[in-house]
Amino acid sequence: MSVLTNHPPRETFAQAGGRDVRAAVREGRWARATHGLARGYVQANLAIVPERYAFDFLRFCQRNPKPCPLLEVTDPSDPEAKRSAAGSDIRTDLPGYRLYRDGKLIEEVRSIKELWRPDHVAFLIGCSNSMDEVLLGAIPQRHLESEQGRISVYISNIPCEPAGLFHGPVVVSMRPTPKRLLARAIELSARFPIAHGAPMHVGDPREIGIEDLSKVQWGRFNPVGPDEVPVFWGCGVTPQAIAMACGIPEMITHAAGHMFVSDLKLAALVQ
Amino acid sequence: MSVLTNHPPRETFAQAGGRDVRAAVREGRWARATHGLARGYVQANLAIVPERYAFDFLRFCQRNPKPCPLLEVTDPSDPEAKRSAAGSDIRTDLPGYRLYRDGKLIEEVRSIKELWRPDHVAFLIGCSNSMDEVLLGAIPQRHLESEQGRISVYISNIPCEPAGLFHGPVVVSMRPTPKRLLARAIELSARFPIAHGAPMHVGDPREIGIEDLSKVQWGRFNPVGPDEVPVFWGCGVTPQAIAMACGIPEMITHAAGHMFVSDLKLAALVQ
Repeated sequence: MSVLTNHPPRETFAQAGGRDVRAAVREGRWARATHGLARGYVQANLAIVPERYAFDFLRFCQRNPKPCPLLEVTDPSDPEAKRSAAGSDIRTDLPGYRLYRDGKLIEEVRSIKELWRPDHVAFLIGCSNSMDEVLLGAIPQRHLESEQGRISVYISNIPCEPAGLFHGPVVVSMRPTPKRLLARAIELSARFPIAHGAPMHVGDPREIGIEDLSKVQWGRFNPVGPDEVPVFWGCGVTPQAIAMACGIPEMITHAAGHMFVSDLKLAALVQ
Repeated sequence: MSVLTNHPPRETFAQAGGRDVRAAVREGRWARATHGLARGYVQANLAIVPERYAFDFLRFCQRNPKPCPLLEVTDPSDPEAKRSAAGSDIRTDLPGYRLYRDGKLIEEVRSIKELWRPDHVAFLIGCSNSMDEVLLGAIPQRHLESEQGRISVYISNIPCEPAGLFHGPVVVSMRPTPKRLLARAIELSARFPIAHGAPMHVGDPREIGIEDLSKVQWGRFNPVGPDEVPVFWGCGVTPQAIAMACGIPEMITHAAGHMFVSDLKLAALVQ
């Protein structure tokens, strides 16, 4: 998505607040994926649907809290996420968007000001990026180790609980986890349901329909070392897999990895 | 609500499962409040609204998780709570219902088979009854000490976060809690968001608009002893106060204290 030639290093915004990151995005000073930014703040996936599908989609999220933990649902036509980020504008504050029509990815854009309609409802869904800070204390976060790093994202064969129009597979993100730290990683992540909570699967990827870890659907492959085990968390890209599976006439989402950064601190949402 | 002359003692169903309690209710063998029954199982408040209000109401619950923690939302027209109680029938499995029209309580009935329509959507909202078993180990549960006992329920002046048509005050339930066990009661209840989680207020009732504890809105007054402090949890009767405040054309609820008993064990929903 990046169009900036002199992009600031990721570290520039590591200790920033959500508001600062959103301002940088809106003003074109940040146009890349948001992992490692505003550490400690809750980042969110985005899914926008027309109001006529909103009750079905909200019921879908309620039934699938692991991949789709709800941070906020806006009122129809209102582009401000009032509760999690006062003063925000969902149409401009993410560094990348994707437009799906009839279940097909049509285009990737930098702003959705031109696409937004009065019948649009925005769903902000918690993101495992939010857990980076928490997990960093316990397990290596391979995707944070280099500027080009990205978490590895796959479509699993675990079915979502359907609701109305919406059905399809759970999307998962994978972190290579040292075996001796496995229990600790699960224990810690379980305390943060808003960031997908405990993993959905631990170990052999084939058990959830992933034949080859090197073939990521989104993000970048992070190899699993000999003393490590792949651990799979629910991922907020799930709505995009759902859009593709159910062929909804229109869904607008974030571009994978390009999240909405809220003003909420993850520590305030611990369970 | 009771119409039975030879009602079995509450203890009869204390160790029963949710399914057994629902069968007893459906067959007319239990017609009273459900506190103390099926201990360890999640009990739920009920609110049924027409589909045209369902997205607003679901957004309302999402914004007010303390009084309205969602256990399940049914698909329109389906009276079975498939996910929390397979084989259940929401129209017959609660020992009492209330019909509100235009914000006014119209009648209290034993079944809503005649009232149910294809556009009805049922919301099951976690209930603090579910915590009885957990809290019993830590604090006295005055309302469980006698057959006539009921928890004390009040309308507070804490406003709910509105959504669409829905607005109004938070309803709270109060448990007199020994001061020396206060922290423990909060710590324990906080682990069960589905049963309203941690209290919304501790101490002086006037700070949340309750002038006289002896004047309960629902249930029965449980006096607060000299070494005790009143502790207030969010209460799933809140939708009834909301129905009254916003004048929704139609809402069907449980009768206060007469809950839906699910098949889910609270222990499985610990956070």
